[in-house]
Amino acid sequence: MTLLGQNLKINGDRLWNSLMDMAKIGPGVAGGNNRQTLTNEDGEGRRLFQTWCEEQGCTMGVDQMGNMFARRDGVDTTALPVYVGSHLDTQPTGGKYDGVLGVLGGLEILRTLNDLNVKTKHPIVVTNFTNEEGTRFAPAMLASGVFAGIHEKEWAYERRDAEGKLFVDELKRIGWLGDEIVGKRKMHAFFELHIEQGPILEAQKKDIGIVTHGQGLRWIQVTITGKPAHTGSTPMQMRRNAGLGMARVLTMVDEIALSHAPHAVGAAGHIDISPNSRNVIPGTAVFTVDFRSPELSVIEDMENRLFDGARQVCQEMELDINFEKVGGFDPVAFDPGCINAVRNAAEHLGYSSMDLISGAGHDACWINRVAPTAMIMCPCVDGLSHNEAEEITPDWAVAGTEVLLHAVLEKAEIVA
Amino acid sequence: MTLLGQNLKINGDRLWNSLMDMAKIGPGVAGGNNRQTLTNEDGEGRRLFQTWCEEQGCTMGVDQMGNMFARRDGVDTTALPVYVGSHLDTQPTGGKYDGVLGVLGGLEILRTLNDLNVKTKHPIVVTNFTNEEGTRFAPAMLASGVFAGIHEKEWAYERRDAEGKLFVDELKRIGWLGDEIVGKRKMHAFFELHIEQGPILEAQKKDIGIVTHGQGLRWIQVTITGKPAHTGSTPMQMRRNAGLGMARVLTMVDEIALSHAPHAVGAAGHIDISPNSRNVIPGTAVFTVDFRSPELSVIEDMENRLFDGARQVCQEMELDINFEKVGGFDPVAFDPGCINAVRNAAEHLGYSSMDLISGAGHDACWINRVAPTAMIMCPCVDGLSHNEAEEITPDWAVAGTEVLLHAVLEKAEIVA
Repeated sequence: MTLLGQNLKINGDRLWNSLMDMAKIGPGVAGGNNRQTLTNEDGEGRRLFQTWCEEQGCTMGVDQMGNMFARRDGVDTTALPVYVGSHLDTQPTGGKYDGVLGVLGGLEILRTLNDLNVKTKHPIVVTNFTNEEGTRFAPAMLASGVFAGIHEKEWAYERRDAEGKLFVDELKRIGWLGDEIVGKRKMHAFFELHIEQGPILEAQKKDIGIVTHGQGLRWIQVTITGKPAHTGSTPMQMRRNAGLGMARVLTMVDEIALSHAPHAVGAAGHIDISPNSRNVIPGTAVFTVDFRSPELSVIEDMENRLFDGARQVCQEMELDINFEKVGGFDPVAFDPGCINAVRNAAEHLGYSSMDLISGAGHDACWINRVAPTAMIMCPCVDGLSHNEAEEITPDWAVAGTEVLLHAVLEKAEIVA
Repeated sequence: MTLLGQNLKINGDRLWNSLMDMAKIGPGVAGGNNRQTLTNEDGEGRRLFQTWCEEQGCTMGVDQMGNMFARRDGVDTTALPVYVGSHLDTQPTGGKYDGVLGVLGGLEILRTLNDLNVKTKHPIVVTNFTNEEGTRFAPAMLASGVFAGIHEKEWAYERRDAEGKLFVDELKRIGWLGDEIVGKRKMHAFFELHIEQGPILEAQKKDIGIVTHGQGLRWIQVTITGKPAHTGSTPMQMRRNAGLGMARVLTMVDEIALSHAPHAVGAAGHIDISPNSRNVIPGTAVFTVDFRSPELSVIEDMENRLFDGARQVCQEMELDINFEKVGGFDPVAFDPGCINAVRNAAEHLGYSSMDLISGAGHDACWINRVAPTAMIMCPCVDGLSHNEAEEITPDWAVAGTEVLLHAVLEKAEIVA
């Protein structure tokens, strides 16, 4: 990076105060937040963000998915902007930092550059993507997905929440249906700062995670069907115990994932047994296997070994088995130039860092399809997220935002 | 047995018609019955049974638990009665035969003896035990348990149903709180005819199961506690996956039971995972292990191996584990003399038979504590019970009832 900006520091107190001010909107029931997408609270959070951006002299663009783009002009009127951002919506029992840090960290960059009157060649745009969480309107990362051409806008509009309300109606209702064509903007680069939502950085005592890849995911819903029967009066050799079949498959899932150590993971978080009575042998077991890896070939190998292995287990036990793919996306390899900008920034600032693979999906995973992209992660206490008790330290927030600032400046280029 | 009665046959059509008439009371939603204990329907079923018994000249005694005793006198006024019976109450989605066959089979014996004017030395008493099923008021076999001194009557009275209603209030409400002291009656012998509720007799093509033992039971509720965490962003080696721990313990339960083949059984019918979300590693797994064996030492061995083995599995996986005994009873060895009477009857009548161990609990298991007791089982289609689709053939019902008749006659002694 240019020497011009090498001593730039953000205002950590201002960043933290903004995080706390945003957290007052849509408070949760246990210290976190319930600011689900396209609720009144989401609208209020958007207005606060807009006010803050306008105070910094930004112009605000809003597209037809409600994505918000706060622009600080660059010196070169023909240069593509460097984008930063994440999302302001939360889980129903979410934390104060998941997504929010990436948006307000972006705002803090603009405030810092304005304070110090730093000019950049490229414009810098801070983005708030609509409905990253996907809890109210599935799937997650809906609006960044439309931006990146993954989903059709009209399809996204027709998503319904649990009460049957349409995405497009709720977007209009809260007043954030913009007129910009979705995905029209071209990006010089995109950076997303996000809390890790995992335990690695804290355990390794690292300030910064340099995210090189996003794991690919497969959700395979497995249905094993045996025969419900009395736990007492059915001899062992006449049982068709779907719960026991499931137990063997779960053990296999673990072995398959471990065979691709260290990056592949596998588990089943969702398990339903029927009839689920103490004295009835399970007749049906339904569970969802979650396999992830940064390599597509590994994901495919894990899937195939599950299919073959589980079928064989069930055949031996006279159980029926059925697989349904209920979710998935392919692995993401972030842009080497953007990754390098993050690495340079962390080194320059003297923060400890390590390469990370993102286990969760993020807006950056979709934006990476249409722009050079990288992610910066900061630790979160105990790896806890999607939980009102989600916590980070102010120091972690500062480190992440400063690395974001300097990575952005490498791409946006300070003008003397 | 005495030669006098050796050609006695029951009236199969009459037996079947009575079964079908009783099934009209408290019909289920799918062809079976919902005649739960101490409901209006139970009261109606009891009145029908009483009417039928009185038509046969029986006197009806009712004790303070609502147990019904229909007595046909014997010639010897000092001889203790031979008792037969089972229960008329059903599961909420129960079948037409579970329990009912044992009561109405007993009635059919009295009708047959009356038709043919056969006199016995000992009186014969047909019994309907209150609340065998235990679904409305736990535990199962409640009133036979009080009769046998297992439970205190006052404790039984205080059992509450899901709506908070007391057993004693409901017993009064339907008009079947009798005045006889519970358990005062002394029995010369007790025989219970029951459908198998398992698949063995049908698979082995046997008409009659000669029940030599009742399995003992232990219900051990296991709680494994790990840490709920993101299925993507938590490295395999940092997981504390309670679901995987459960899978290993379930496999162990199967191995432990199989090591005591052929009579021991083990399984978990009830499994609950928390938070049970596709992208969260299970933080808690609660499941109930059901171990049964006709030998107490085997049950104790299975329990101890579960405790030791599961603790070790969980220690290796850094999971916490807790065990709670939530149910159990010791194995039952039925009376050799009564078993022999059943065996003699089956042989004499030319029915195919085999020895069976009852996997389920029955009133006979408690009565065996206070009287020489045995059970007779007949097949049921596909082993299905506690299900409205429970089915038997009229031929099976006849065979079971005829064996009951002749076993009873061996003990009650025909008088010329």
